[in-house]
Amino acid sequence: MAGSSFGHIFRLSTFGESHGVAIGGTIDGVPAGQEIDVALIQAELDRRKPGQSAITTQRKESDTVEILSGIYEGRTTGTPIGFIIRNSDSKSKDYDHLKDNFRPSHADFTYQKKYGHRDHRGGGRSSARETACRVVAGAVAKQILEYKGISFLTYVDQVGNIKFEGEPNRNEIETNEVRCPSNAMAEKMMEYIKEIRKSGDTVGGAIKCIVNGLPIGLGEPVFDKLHAVLGHAVLSINAVKGVEFGSGFEAIEKLGSEHNDLFNEDGTTKTNNAGGIVGGISNGMPLKLRVAFKPVATLLKSQESIDKEGNKVTLEGKGRHDPCVVPRAVPIVESMVAITLLDMLLQHNATRI
Amino acid sequence: MAGSSFGHIFRLSTFGESHGVAIGGTIDGVPAGQEIDVALIQAELDRRKPGQSAITTQRKESDTVEILSGIYEGRTTGTPIGFIIRNSDSKSKDYDHLKDNFRPSHADFTYQKKYGHRDHRGGGRSSARETACRVVAGAVAKQILEYKGISFLTYVDQVGNIKFEGEPNRNEIETNEVRCPSNAMAEKMMEYIKEIRKSGDTVGGAIKCIVNGLPIGLGEPVFDKLHAVLGHAVLSINAVKGVEFGSGFEAIEKLGSEHNDLFNEDGTTKTNNAGGIVGGISNGMPLKLRVAFKPVATLLKSQESIDKEGNKVTLEGKGRHDPCVVPRAVPIVESMVAITLLDMLLQHNATRI
Amino acid sequence: MAGSSFGHIFRLSTFGESHGVAIGGTIDGVPAGQEIDVALIQAELDRRKPGQSAITTQRKESDTVEILSGIYEGRTTGTPIGFIIRNSDSKSKDYDHLKDNFRPSHADFTYQKKYGHRDHRGGGRSSARETACRVVAGAVAKQILEYKGISFLTYVDQVGNIKFEGEPNRNEIETNEVRCPSNAMAEKMMEYIKEIRKSGDTVGGAIKCIVNGLPIGLGEPVFDKLHAVLGHAVLSINAVKGVEFGSGFEAIEKLGSEHNDLFNEDGTTKTNNAGGIVGGISNGMPLKLRVAFKPVATLLKSQESIDKEGNKVTLEGKGRHDPCVVPRAVPIVESMVAITLLDMLLQHNATRI
Amino acid sequence: MAGSSFGHIFRLSTFGESHGVAIGGTIDGVPAGQEIDVALIQAELDRRKPGQSAITTQRKESDTVEILSGIYEGRTTGTPIGFIIRNSDSKSKDYDHLKDNFRPSHADFTYQKKYGHRDHRGGGRSSARETACRVVAGAVAKQILEYKGISFLTYVDQVGNIKFEGEPNRNEIETNEVRCPSNAMAEKMMEYIKEIRKSGDTVGGAIKCIVNGLPIGLGEPVFDKLHAVLGHAVLSINAVKGVEFGSGFEAIEKLGSEHNDLFNEDGTTKTNNAGGIVGGISNGMPLKLRVAFKPVATLLKSQESIDKEGNKVTLEGKGRHDPCVVPRAVPIVESMVAITLLDMLLQHNATRI
Repeated sequence: MAGSSFGHIFRLSTFGESHGVAIGGTIDGVPAGQEIDVALIQAELDRRKPGQSAITTQRKESDTVEILSGIYEGRTTGTPIGFIIRNSDSKSKDYDHLKDNFRPSHADFTYQKKYGHRDHRGGGRSSARETACRVVAGAVAKQILEYKGISFLTYVDQVGNIKFEGEPNRNEIETNEVRCPSNAMAEKMMEYIKEIRKSGDTVGGAIKCIVNGLPIGLGEPVFDKLHAVLGHAVLSINAVKGVEFGSGFEAIEKLGSEHNDLFNEDGTTKTNNAGGIVGGISNGMPLKLRVAFKPVATLLKSQESIDKEGNKVTLEGKGRHDPCVVPRAVPIVESMVAITLLDMLLQHNATRI
Repeated sequence: MAGSSFGHIFRLSTFGESHGVAIGGTIDGVPAGQEIDVALIQAELDRRKPGQSAITTQRKESDTVEILSGIYEGRTTGTPIGFIIRNSDSKSKDYDHLKDNFRPSHADFTYQKKYGHRDHRGGGRSSARETACRVVAGAVAKQILEYKGISFLTYVDQVGNIKFEGEPNRNEIETNEVRCPSNAMAEKMMEYIKEIRKSGDTVGGAIKCIVNGLPIGLGEPVFDKLHAVLGHAVLSINAVKGVEFGSGFEAIEKLGSEHNDLFNEDGTTKTNNAGGIVGGISNGMPLKLRVAFKPVATLLKSQESIDKEGNKVTLEGKGRHDPCVVPRAVPIVESMVAITLLDMLLQHNATRI
Repeated sequence: MAGSSFGHIFRLSTFGESHGVAIGGTIDGVPAGQEIDVALIQAELDRRKPGQSAITTQRKESDTVEILSGIYEGRTTGTPIGFIIRNSDSKSKDYDHLKDNFRPSHADFTYQKKYGHRDHRGGGRSSARETACRVVAGAVAKQILEYKGISFLTYVDQVGNIKFEGEPNRNEIETNEVRCPSNAMAEKMMEYIKEIRKSGDTVGGAIKCIVNGLPIGLGEPVFDKLHAVLGHAVLSINAVKGVEFGSGFEAIEKLGSEHNDLFNEDGTTKTNNAGGIVGGISNGMPLKLRVAFKPVATLLKSQESIDKEGNKVTLEGKGRHDPCVVPRAVPIVESMVAITLLDMLLQHNATRI
Repeated sequence: MAGSSFGHIFRLSTFGESHGVAIGGTIDGVPAGQEIDVALIQAELDRRKPGQSAITTQRKESDTVEILSGIYEGRTTGTPIGFIIRNSDSKSKDYDHLKDNFRPSHADFTYQKKYGHRDHRGGGRSSARETACRVVAGAVAKQILEYKGISFLTYVDQVGNIKFEGEPNRNEIETNEVRCPSNAMAEKMMEYIKEIRKSGDTVGGAIKCIVNGLPIGLGEPVFDKLHAVLGHAVLSINAVKGVEFGSGFEAIEKLGSEHNDLFNEDGTTKTNNAGGIVGGISNGMPLKLRVAFKPVATLLKSQESIDKEGNKVTLEGKGRHDPCVVPRAVPIVESMVAITLLDMLLQHNATRI
């Protein structure tokens, strides 16, 4: 409960405010004897961190992870992996003007009402900085899943109304700043984001995640269907407003006769409207999900708002500014999917004795 | 784990196959001293049951709930409410032809692979019949929430490409067979469903759920954000392919300056793109979510498929047929939302001592 | 939470009051494909039920279990086993005099204060009748464990100050009414219990449980050490006041040099002061635990007490009377140990991938 | 699962090996707005740490806790408290001789078999050093409970066969090195421990914990009875072999007529054989429990043992040596009790809405 843990067997518990001493967490239930390359964990963190390119926030977070336990001589011991990431670049004074004011569409108001007392600096616990801990756990999960032949293809497929269609080119994703699987399309997105940035505004986007090599059988019946748990996982990421699997919202308008995925003789299916999940259980086809992000609430424009006493105030747009969050959110989505899949794989193993 | 439980404090655990002896469950963590009207539970079950109208399956399930514990002299005792619903109309032989064959887009294949041994009759545990147990728990939760001034408005807002727009008329929802909040629009939907029915086909749809009167503060930070848990809840319903909150997928194309919800001086907001949840925590505005359902996989048309050995077979369409599931799914969505909200309300109460 | 569930993977959730309609439960996480003999479940229930002999309560409970799901054609399907046991012999009027009075050392007072509203008949949820559900789940667990070569030896080793010492004779346990592994000693215990019975009084006792054939490795570090979870399990049985493992309370007075269990070359140990658990993890030696039961609180003697308003009342001893509960508690202890061990076995399997 | 977390609402998750970089943890579900004095946390840690006196191990652990989150301006924010304690005095080479050998009655053997790969240095995760994290969480819980008028009296009541009887003198506990509530008795214990120390041996002991001021109603029916969860909590502490509540093992020999606690008119009881818990729920009387510790397995004597290949080896006694662990275990027992009680208090609050 209380919301800072995720997973049943492979389970991440995190702590930390944006401008406190450090963020960090504990990963329990890591299978023993697995080789883990800590440099790969750091590499994933670097994909998430701000200040990577012209189109993301210039906040420089060091985001250096320190692994404190659970890995000995390069392999997991089966005991929990503890880790911390110190908060180095915390200009807390930047936030003094927000101590008593509530920013529109930020968690300032709801946290204040829920807890009565909060660390307002940089959004405190509600800051997206918290997602760095998810990336650490995701990088561990991904390494273990990859030994099992499971691979991830995660990318930005929409920014504003610019939508990527067609077959993703895996090799181009990390060669452009948007993490779009087409450099040509990425360029259009970049231009649009730069324009948005100039106006001090922000824009939404969407991320697609495809997982290949999943075994058949992941997902538990009824309440913990694979897509239900995956949905929980990605909806918990800041700024996410929706999620869909396989045919998703388009399925509303489909007929059963066109939507059903007919079998090949080997148990694969001719189409994949299911997105790799039938009856809540993986069927061996590629897992497909798509996540919708709203535009970031922090603008470089002034906005009308209220203070704690309900008085009208005008908030000036200042500080860092992230015109479009989706490029940086790619490793976060991938991490939450990886954490979920490893946990569900371990859960599935308990189905037989 | 194993997927048959939902919730942390108010927690439902269910059991039962479609054609076994009975389905049922246990609801633990029911607050003590609450008046519960068992007739209202039965009334909700009746809303879900098949055979209600011309457009739903003609399978006649009695769906009579028997409350076995936890309510004494009309009020909850704080101990678990146990209940069963016997399976009366189980023509198991109707399913003999499916013992060794896998129906396309049904859970036959994935259950067989996951467990190695299954009750194939009527889909067994993967049957939507299981959702009756959710409706029982939902009806308990709803009664308790209503004492707190929380009210639900749940309806079908799309069938195929026929979409309801505008202000829902609460009074019309239960006066038409589609559960659309406009009798005029419902008529169009009915006509379309009847046409689909004649062709032996099925079609998807969407359900919208609006909750008024929620207190500020529900939802836990990071992993158990209110919409993440609600997403988990509704994605676990059979045939659901996606969920969105507030502005949802439309947020992808929005600018921050148009999407941010500005405050009024009383803490309410001028718009509600957030759908009542900010930073994962309810803000006192109406909760809004929308759920996408795929077309039911069971057709009255013959389909190509395979058997257990991977041989090609042709499945004849026979038995009951539900051309559009969304009207019957209205109480199921509402129930999962109610179960989640009561649990999150109890969790929120633990935030202070 | 709320206390009606036990276990993580193999997980039992129960419901039911002593004089309600029925008691029952759900067992989730049952490994798929296991043969289960329902007659053996009933046989275990019969070992627990009242009215078996001259020395137990004469309340005749039918205790007939009805399995509702999860077993198909004699084997588990991996989906939850739901079950109920109807309450047939409920002379509720016997309890009218207790509606407003609190019996000494009964849960009447604490339930009333905790919940404000309770089913007072026969102790309601606090009645030991609830343990029948544990026996159902225990009987399932035991059958599955026995396929793995794990066997149980559980018996009464003390009644009042009459203590069995020496090697237990497995064959004699079920041949006497006390379930003592020595018929000679059982006779002494019987005589003592009959004497106690005549005086309308009750007496405590102790149960020992030895498990052979456990694999090495069960138990999770730190908080879920095998004996910690087993302790939780058996302390939750009505009337239990203490539990000890291996050398137990005698270890207080031991020196390390006499208490340490030295290894044989095959990894077994020369002594077993550990009781089969080292560092919280099973070491392959026999598991040994001992459970202390207080005398039952219901006497056939009149006692001074108070009513709801705090007025003095005299309670007459009437109704059924169980002078010594330990013989009937043998299958309950065994069941809680079996449930725990199967769950820990499944948890241990998740340690590797 | 995986054993590194404890509690449902107030929940501690820990990580860390004895000779890794650091140990630490996350406390989630801390009620918001509570004043926490970090110096008091450190003071509790200092009570646990080795090297405090002539009778404990001379290992000097700095045991300095660093609070990383969850407390802002001296008060809890309701978000998780993260903390670490660095391992400073880790002479890992002291343990090289143990890399391939198994010490008798240590967790070396069981961890090796369970995980296949382990950090052998100082016992790794199985080291009692892990309990420092429990003391941190316990110190937080105790501060919050004390605001509610709940107070703890925890002391050593037995070392070897030297047993304290009579009324504990609260003021003397911290004035002697044994933490016995009688300086006179403490002196006898000290002499005995020094003697044991000289011989390179170790001895067991017992700790008693009394809690005053508990509200009525803590504890959940059936599986999470207050003493069942407390038992789980304290049995999870290294070297504990048994636990008893109230009359405990002595209840075995008692008659119901002498064991029942008769009511006073105000709902208190004339005696307290129950130890403050009836039907698994606190009754407002002092909570009483007693915990049995075995002698520490590490001796300063040579012992026969085996190595990984099953070859006989002789282990020399060297390194630090703790002849009697119970004085240092007092704050650990108290911490586990405090953690449990705060969690159960929060759980109890969820019983009503």
